[in-house]
Amino acid sequence: MSNSNECLISRRDVNFLLLDWLQIESIIEHAPFTDHSRFTISATLDLFESIAKAHFTPHNRKNDEYEPQFDGERVTLNSEIKKALEAFSEAGLMAATQNEDIGGMKLPTSVDLAGMAYMFAANAGSIGYAFLTKANANLLLAHGAADLVDRFVKPMMEGAAFGTMCLSEPQAGSSLADIRTRALLMPDGRYRIFGSKMWISGGEHELTDNIVHAVLAKIPNSDGKLPPGTEGISLFVAPKRLVDLHGNLGERNDVALAGLNHKMGYRGTVNCALNFGEGRFTPEGEAGAIGEIIGEPGKGLAYMFHMMNEARIGVGLGAAAMGYSGYLHALDYARERLQGRLRSARDPSTPQTPIIAHSDVKRMLLAAKCYAEGSLALVLYCAKLFDETRIADKAAKHAHALLDLLTPVAKSWPSQWGLAANDIAIQVLGGAGYTRDYPVEQLYRDNRLNPIHEGTHGIQALDLLGRKVARGDGLALLSERITTTITAAREDEILAPHANMLDHTWKRISCVTEALHALSDVDERLANATAYLEAFGHIVVGWLWLDQARSALALRASPEADMDFISGKLQACRFYFAWELPKIEAWLGVLDPVDTCTLAMKDNWY
Amino acid sequence: MSNSNECLISRRDVNFLLLDWLQIESIIEHAPFTDHSRFTISATLDLFESIAKAHFTPHNRKNDEYEPQFDGERVTLNSEIKKALEAFSEAGLMAATQNEDIGGMKLPTSVDLAGMAYMFAANAGSIGYAFLTKANANLLLAHGAADLVDRFVKPMMEGAAFGTMCLSEPQAGSSLADIRTRALLMPDGRYRIFGSKMWISGGEHELTDNIVHAVLAKIPNSDGKLPPGTEGISLFVAPKRLVDLHGNLGERNDVALAGLNHKMGYRGTVNCALNFGEGRFTPEGEAGAIGEIIGEPGKGLAYMFHMMNEARIGVGLGAAAMGYSGYLHALDYARERLQGRLRSARDPSTPQTPIIAHSDVKRMLLAAKCYAEGSLALVLYCAKLFDETRIADKAAKHAHALLDLLTPVAKSWPSQWGLAANDIAIQVLGGAGYTRDYPVEQLYRDNRLNPIHEGTHGIQALDLLGRKVARGDGLALLSERITTTITAAREDEILAPHANMLDHTWKRISCVTEALHALSDVDERLANATAYLEAFGHIVVGWLWLDQARSALALRASPEADMDFISGKLQACRFYFAWELPKIEAWLGVLDPVDTCTLAMKDNWY
Repeated sequence: MSNSNECLISRRDVNFLLLDWLQIESIIEHAPFTDHSRFTISATLDLFESIAKAHFTPHNRKNDEYEPQFDGERVTLNSEIKKALEAFSEAGLMAATQNEDIGGMKLPTSVDLAGMAYMFAANAGSIGYAFLTKANANLLLAHGAADLVDRFVKPMMEGAAFGTMCLSEPQAGSSLADIRTRALLMPDGRYRIFGSKMWISGGEHELTDNIVHAVLAKIPNSDGKLPPGTEGISLFVAPKRLVDLHGNLGERNDVALAGLNHKMGYRGTVNCALNFGEGRFTPEGEAGAIGEIIGEPGKGLAYMFHMMNEARIGVGLGAAAMGYSGYLHALDYARERLQGRLRSARDPSTPQTPIIAHSDVKRMLLAAKCYAEGSLALVLYCAKLFDETRIADKAAKHAHALLDLLTPVAKSWPSQWGLAANDIAIQVLGGAGYTRDYPVEQLYRDNRLNPIHEGTHGIQALDLLGRKVARGDGLALLSERITTTITAAREDEILAPHANMLDHTWKRISCVTEALHALSDVDERLANATAYLEAFGHIVVGWLWLDQARSALALRASPEADMDFISGKLQACRFYFAWELPKIEAWLGVLDPVDTCTLAMKDNWY
Repeated sequence: MSNSNECLISRRDVNFLLLDWLQIESIIEHAPFTDHSRFTISATLDLFESIAKAHFTPHNRKNDEYEPQFDGERVTLNSEIKKALEAFSEAGLMAATQNEDIGGMKLPTSVDLAGMAYMFAANAGSIGYAFLTKANANLLLAHGAADLVDRFVKPMMEGAAFGTMCLSEPQAGSSLADIRTRALLMPDGRYRIFGSKMWISGGEHELTDNIVHAVLAKIPNSDGKLPPGTEGISLFVAPKRLVDLHGNLGERNDVALAGLNHKMGYRGTVNCALNFGEGRFTPEGEAGAIGEIIGEPGKGLAYMFHMMNEARIGVGLGAAAMGYSGYLHALDYARERLQGRLRSARDPSTPQTPIIAHSDVKRMLLAAKCYAEGSLALVLYCAKLFDETRIADKAAKHAHALLDLLTPVAKSWPSQWGLAANDIAIQVLGGAGYTRDYPVEQLYRDNRLNPIHEGTHGIQALDLLGRKVARGDGLALLSERITTTITAAREDEILAPHANMLDHTWKRISCVTEALHALSDVDERLANATAYLEAFGHIVVGWLWLDQARSALALRASPEADMDFISGKLQACRFYFAWELPKIEAWLGVLDPVDTCTLAMKDNWY
């Protein structure tokens, strides 16, 4: 059986993606990243990798076998989760991207996410707490008052509290306009919150002394009624335990666990329903969870999207990392496992061949390589855009617009195709892959969450087609960057055919986009949004593969060039253009003209 | 939460498929099926359905939660498995397709498999024992001597023994040429068998007094060496307990459990490694499991394919049934669950809509309907072909050739797309679908086995392209039947565009097939066999959808026509031709000319 620590993420690939392809050294020439160098980046990645291997991989299976338990009083988790997260915080990785004043090292997000890829590959369930905590802290830093930062963000950065995001309710999942949780202003400026929240990851545990819930709730109108729709939605910090103005932990807040969810995978991360304000933890007549508002009333949804967008990139990263690890496990197995012979050399008296020699196994591994490395490249590309938004120059605005456009793609493409890599990994291992003796089946179960949470696949599609490609400069900027890659790639005889194909498909989807936006019927325009998302994503990743191939080719000139690595990138690019990009025609075919099959379908016809 | 018994298989659809579409009444005009009538067929389906609901559905989740345990002495299963299988046998369903002399009712296999679909939908883990037993009995009936039938088949048909198939070994899974299990002839004509078998479903349990293992082993040459390759592979009955010539159960045979496999799903069916002849159950010096040969030495592999082909159709059936049940659960949930509003009517003060009104949910449900109903149609089509092989007329030979061709498709297409229906079902339920509170996640895990066992997806591809389309009349006969459907469908204005599209794609794949067979390099010809299998399967199922639509349209004339049902079939056909069939171009694109990406890929490039 393979050593899981050898099958997380290829460091060779991470170095290529960050340094050769994304040229992250150009980022660290600018504030706020100027403390960094190629050396510190490498050392930080080493740190992530070593913590992943020492503290996270070893209990990944155990998280699956011993899921969180609730005895009516407290939630019990596999005890190794706490130790692993302590090691993570103590190494300074919780605050890695922050400024020094809250214990950070001003690490570029691109490097941070590359490091986090190791954590997700090692143990998504355990690192989930840290990921949410980092995103929660970033939300408070962006929109919270200074005292909220002091009292809540600092403990989170030290690992003394973990964060959550409380959006969904039993009757309101994708439709946040329908939340019913209410926040009533108290004379002291704080609020009392009442309502039920659903699907809260990290919602209850004893890993830390406190849990910082970021809660969406509506402030009622003067008539006591909740405003309709997204109006009046505001955002609150409602911690598990109250924190006084000096940062001291006080009494238990009125936030009660209503029940745990028992999941197919991703079991290390406790997920639960929470009741705010049912009065379990407060004297009679004083029910209501104490909440402090973040920013201004009525702007909660916009603020929450700060965290949501980060979480969506994080979902993409987790999906990429799990797909990547599955791919490496399959590769490892395919090199060791002997079975059969090539059709052209079937003499049964000869030894069997490693299955990696069979073309169908090569196909599966090439597809998995395209999905895994392509997903990671996409997420790191977006992370670099995020870094660019923090650099005070004219590129920041462009980066922001592009990131806005690409976020639904970075969330959905890895969720779909990283999972496909996990499916392939099971298939490469055959019967062995279907047993719990190998890690690939757990990766497949764990990764199946990613197309669901933080906005389902279908919601990402509506976001992309209904909003992102319709507004701002994102699409024009993307077109410019794709064209730049195409023009450069045409100079190389290996890449020119791919460049021409990308040019063709990009023009094709641009026409489709225009045709869709010319439609006056919004239901029709968005009817097949998922097909659009999938085609768009496949083209974007095709562009990134072509761009990776360009960077790989450029490395050939060096005397220390790793020719195997370069050949692998080129072959994956070739495979992607031959096997993957042609898939888009089927998706585009239902978009222009819009196929109305789904719209016309009636409930009682099923 | 939905009632699982309402979400197995649509009886309305089964009636349509068997009676209206396949016109099974034309089968029962012929021996050996003449005892049957529309009435007995309906009553038998009722019986399957009622036993599935009363005895199988109720413990499906429990099978998952309490997987088989081995304490070193015996294997313990969830006790409800035994009771359910007793009810199944007592109702006469184990022997349903057999002649009266062994307790059967000469049921057409098409009806038997339609009934078995309910069992697989209700509880694949439990019915697995019965399915293997039926296939094992059919193998012995086809190739075993009369006394083997008396001593082994009869007890199986009464539910007193269950059957297995023992092919794989630790070093020989897909490559049966490499088996090392040996069978040594004893003076009394029986054999002593020595070797290790792997992945044996139903290999050890106490559900029945005996287990009838069908075991592949090689008979050594006179020099004591095993012949190379598939030469000398013979087939033996080696029961768990010996059976004397009068059918009495005797001592324990030398077949020992080596260990249980712990699977991701399908846990009700125990799966294990068995050691034959290690001497655990025999006096010293008498090791070797006693085996009796089936048929002639050296023909074991050919005989085993009798069982294997039945098992492959059975895998397709199970995959279809699980996909079908997932689809119905998703449909049920989508009708109940309120969330959001249509884009064109977003007034947040109005009530939320059932999610089935959202076009993306309609899309998912239409796709799942196409996969589930299309899979079941494919398997029942093959079952009818099997029935035709048993009717003594000239159609039998044709049916045999077609069945031979379509078996890899009937195994692989439902395994791939039925599983896709299960994936969709999770997505429709969203977070709920990812919890173990709903059955869709278990269906997804259970169904993931099907692309692996009884010949992986890749093995089916080699079988189709390397053997089945290259020999015999199968392809010509299929072409004839497809052309018949196309010609007839062209007469209808709704179906004519689909007929033209099918005509085009069928001509296209016929050209590809010819081009591939013109290639002299066998490695190149078969390099992308999986793409061929997937394209071929999608076209075949497209043909069956068009043919179903034809039958549905013909029903309109009746005054009792169920217009909703008919509209659903037509809309699914329309969806399939708009969304699914266009996928084949991407697969065919790598076949003609053959894309050599995979062949050229090198191990150290990954």
